[in-house]
Amino acid sequence: MVKTMNNKTPDFNRNIKLTIAYDGTCYHGFQRQSNALAIQEILETRLSVLFGHPLKITGAGRTDAGVHAYGQTVNFLTSGSTIPAGNIPKAARGLLPPDIVVTAGEEVPLAFHARRSAQSKIYIYRVLQSPLADPFRRNYSWHISQPLNVAGMNQAAQYIIGTHDFSAFRAAGGSSVKPVRTIFEASCSSLGQLIEFSFGGNGFLYHMVRNLVGTLIQVGQGRLTAEQFAGILLSRDRTQAGITAPPQGLYLKEVRYSR
Amino acid sequence: MVKTMNNKTPDFNRNIKLTIAYDGTCYHGFQRQSNALAIQEILETRLSVLFGHPLKITGAGRTDAGVHAYGQTVNFLTSGSTIPAGNIPKAARGLLPPDIVVTAGEEVPLAFHARRSAQSKIYIYRVLQSPLADPFRRNYSWHISQPLNVAGMNQAAQYIIGTHDFSAFRAAGGSSVKPVRTIFEASCSSLGQLIEFSFGGNGFLYHMVRNLVGTLIQVGQGRLTAEQFAGILLSRDRTQAGITAPPQGLYLKEVRYSR
Repeated sequence: MVKTMNNKTPDFNRNIKLTIAYDGTCYHGFQRQSNALAIQEILETRLSVLFGHPLKITGAGRTDAGVHAYGQTVNFLTSGSTIPAGNIPKAARGLLPPDIVVTAGEEVPLAFHARRSAQSKIYIYRVLQSPLADPFRRNYSWHISQPLNVAGMNQAAQYIIGTHDFSAFRAAGGSSVKPVRTIFEASCSSLGQLIEFSFGGNGFLYHMVRNLVGTLIQVGQGRLTAEQFAGILLSRDRTQAGITAPPQGLYLKEVRYSR
Repeated sequence: MVKTMNNKTPDFNRNIKLTIAYDGTCYHGFQRQSNALAIQEILETRLSVLFGHPLKITGAGRTDAGVHAYGQTVNFLTSGSTIPAGNIPKAARGLLPPDIVVTAGEEVPLAFHARRSAQSKIYIYRVLQSPLADPFRRNYSWHISQPLNVAGMNQAAQYIIGTHDFSAFRAAGGSSVKPVRTIFEASCSSLGQLIEFSFGGNGFLYHMVRNLVGTLIQVGQGRLTAEQFAGILLSRDRTQAGITAPPQGLYLKEVRYSR
């Protein structure tokens, strides 16, 4: 290993993968920004004291402001510490604010990249369907007063499964990223007043889950049939789909890797 | 009814009882204060627009900063509106911040007083027992890393039931209020990592629930036996009891009236 010198990028011999849970309420999303506090910045700043050098942390998913995570995955390269990766959750406890928690740590091959190595991601989206709002769930679900047809939304969600061009559900304005994704899980179920959508796929376009939910809710309200929902997917036309569901109902549940 | 005149206290002919749920995280408790925002002030200010005059709202329990409520009860006198009391929850929706919700409203006899008429109150206290903190529960439970003996805490809690002098569990400094209270329910149970205490009684001294929990946790940690806990209760000596459990685990669940 080449010796680290001033003003030179050090040679790193360890790649650390961490699983992170966070309440996104107080942050402007995961990705570091120049003008607002992001989760990536907190992790890079606070965890660097364990390693003795600035960290460059890569996240698997760029969650938006207000979006939460049970299982965001990040990685970073280091050579600055011998701390076993499995001890990082405990060591991070006193360094991170209480709304960001490292739940697991492991050492991975140097080639591992939290985003590029990801095989699939699972997102869930929570809706609270009740006449009155719940003060304890205001930051953790989308409150909808009217009754919703859960079976109808679940039926429509089945059209999402498979390999499709999801242009109808990508953020307006779009980008140059290819719009084809493979979705292997899409469901809607309820437990009491809580309705939960679950989506698993090899990747998701920007705002795709929230746009899917915003349109599925129209099915739940009886404003679209499941077949009309399928037609919107096939149209690849963003203007046909529904609104973008608000961020606070969305959770990055899990990132899966092939290893 | 005497006609309301300028600078005179109006004669009120309606007494309104409301049930309120709130997330206490952002407030300095229920009771109005000169130097900090309290839930009482929000209710008085925001709901007054429905009645056309300033409201003087009485709460059943003076919850502390960070303490929550599923069923705080308040009342106020008015003559300024014909709105049916049952419609107030819906009308209040757009007036109150999302962390305060009116869940029920009813008209009650003029003599009803939310605090003095209360027959009993139920409080619950939540502890999260897990090696790592949960970012979603940080404001809604007391996080304790070490394992706790739930059966032992429940056994000790049984000594609380009955009519006792609770001086050992009143806030240090005390007050002139008589320290005898009758407790008809005291229990500790767990569901997964969540431990829940429940206390029902005809009244509670200041900090009494939090002091009971702080001492019961010492039983759960094996630092006190159930019999030693009973001895502390009998001692009436605050210095023998444990710490005051933090506020964010406490919820005023219900206030009961004889009607």
